[in-house]
Amino acid sequence: MSLPRIAIDAMGGDEGVRVMVEGAALARRRHDKFQFLLVGDETQIKAALDTHPQMRGASEILHCEDVVGGDELPSRALRRAKTTSMGLAVNAVKQGDAGAAVSGGNTGALMAMSKLALRTMPGIDRPALAAVLPTLEEDDVVMLDLGANTDANARNLVQFAIMGAAYSRIITGREEPRVRLLNIGTEEIKGTEALRDAASVLQDAAGTLAMQFDGFVESDKINRGQVDVVVTDGFSGNIALKAIEGTARFVTDLLRSAFTSSLRSKIGFLVSRPATELLKHHLDPNNHNGAVFLGLNGVVVKSHGSASAAGVANAVAVTARLLENKLTERIAHDLAELGEDRLRTQPANGSEGAK
Amino acid sequence: MSLPRIAIDAMGGDEGVRVMVEGAALARRRHDKFQFLLVGDETQIKAALDTHPQMRGASEILHCEDVVGGDELPSRALRRAKTTSMGLAVNAVKQGDAGAAVSGGNTGALMAMSKLALRTMPGIDRPALAAVLPTLEEDDVVMLDLGANTDANARNLVQFAIMGAAYSRIITGREEPRVRLLNIGTEEIKGTEALRDAASVLQDAAGTLAMQFDGFVESDKINRGQVDVVVTDGFSGNIALKAIEGTARFVTDLLRSAFTSSLRSKIGFLVSRPATELLKHHLDPNNHNGAVFLGLNGVVVKSHGSASAAGVANAVAVTARLLENKLTERIAHDLAELGEDRLRTQPANGSEGAK
Repeated sequence: MSLPRIAIDAMGGDEGVRVMVEGAALARRRHDKFQFLLVGDETQIKAALDTHPQMRGASEILHCEDVVGGDELPSRALRRAKTTSMGLAVNAVKQGDAGAAVSGGNTGALMAMSKLALRTMPGIDRPALAAVLPTLEEDDVVMLDLGANTDANARNLVQFAIMGAAYSRIITGREEPRVRLLNIGTEEIKGTEALRDAASVLQDAAGTLAMQFDGFVESDKINRGQVDVVVTDGFSGNIALKAIEGTARFVTDLLRSAFTSSLRSKIGFLVSRPATELLKHHLDPNNHNGAVFLGLNGVVVKSHGSASAAGVANAVAVTARLLENKLTERIAHDLAELGEDRLRTQPANGSEGAK
Repeated sequence: MSLPRIAIDAMGGDEGVRVMVEGAALARRRHDKFQFLLVGDETQIKAALDTHPQMRGASEILHCEDVVGGDELPSRALRRAKTTSMGLAVNAVKQGDAGAAVSGGNTGALMAMSKLALRTMPGIDRPALAAVLPTLEEDDVVMLDLGANTDANARNLVQFAIMGAAYSRIITGREEPRVRLLNIGTEEIKGTEALRDAASVLQDAAGTLAMQFDGFVESDKINRGQVDVVVTDGFSGNIALKAIEGTARFVTDLLRSAFTSSLRSKIGFLVSRPATELLKHHLDPNNHNGAVFLGLNGVVVKSHGSASAAGVANAVAVTARLLENKLTERIAHDLAELGEDRLRTQPANGSEGAK
């Protein structure tokens, strides 16, 4: 099967062109059907391509000199959508020059540019940012929204659930991913009105949607492997995601200092190295790289700013799977199944703005 | 200095009377000035006291048969405030029979009973639940609110900051604890209106309050040791706290399974045991046990439901420090310093309910 090519914002990411191009090359080594549109400074891209001869026939360069800054306000970046590598990569998706775009740049700017160029898909009020996280079990868990929106009403949460389930089906192969709403307790009375309303819509829709809705989940259970999709507003999702990332780093930092605290523990570390390497591999964000903007008319994937080439390759592989499995069509299909009526069973503005 | 006695809800907590009494006894072994009012079933308490002769002269028993259930709705529990061990322990503080109460029972019920019996202190609109968490540095970090309120406006957040700073001064000894508001970015434009308004009030009050206000913090930086007090609404705080606890458990679970995956790693584990024990000690929730309801006319401390006797002893020790250092008076003093006017610089309802 031929795959639409993937536009790579070669200038985004803390590590620059070399890592983005090397990541694309790594992904291509695994799947030779991948084709790329590399967007950015032609001289730098050509230099980076020099060490990856297998990329020659598989990539085209779209030259530009402007780059979105890491700390730039999305509103400012938006004005340079036609001149920056990020803007041009997204625009290539809009024009049909590419099937998807991958960037390691400024998340807010990427979101704003993607929304403006690709527009929200029919039936979705707001797009969401979804990422995958490791669990105690084999499958990763999908969490969304992670910050595309600061708040979410019940209708938004139901749409996030549908989008997250479609994503989870693609990456886990489960027919009916187990979906839960993130809350501060599992009892029905807990949390905000928006959460309770969304739960009741999802409960009523059981059987209609290709998911198993299991109610609420607290944030200490996200990575136990009991849930495939965790749905939340962008504020809480961002708080939960960063608390998880920060704590994983915190514990491994403590472990490192414990292991170097004495000669004995240094020896113990060397002996048990294969075990700690396994742990490191499991927790390495590069192995779970690639957050996806869901709900747009096109696939845009955010690679972590500090991702390694292997991390970028993972983001590219995720992008390819979403293209192969026609993510956008799947979401549209599920929205049609649920029907606009059901999404309107709650008061249109009742929970707007509430958390 | 003589210390007011501490009322212990002997029936709260998953482990029952034995652990609560043993925890009190452990605390007393360290500080023989501690005196207790043990509230609960007299027969069970007497049996538990049998193995702790040093507790005899230091404790009185207040008999009752009713106990608040772990899953009971706060509203239901509230009706039995005069008959349950939890209700009577809190009531002892109200009556002046005890200086503080400690319970390992149902958090929602304890909050509801404490609010009703002790009332919110003058100048505070809503009490908050605060806990301490380990960091990479020596001092623990205080985080609040952790779920006493589902949302918080700017005025609530400013009050939480003042209460959290007073608590941090007592446990860290710092004259001006470093305070930050939890947000999804550190730029001034990030987050909700409530957060931005609270930040501007705290910035303006610099120099007046006994704290150093450092702006926003993201949840991956909570445990880096760069901040002493993290201020947030109860929903986000609960999400962050449980994500931190869950991830610490997740990583140590992965570590355990990595260490038992082969003979070599088992040997490595045995050799490096002192190092991993250090880590375990640092992360053990029992060493950070004792969440405090701040902002009430009296001290109420929530011990973790699954705390060990050592954990309960820590909660008792925290309670004693708060009594010795006159927490409530300190908060009242700081509120007076800030002045009602400053708290009113933002529109009274502008951010109400917003996140």
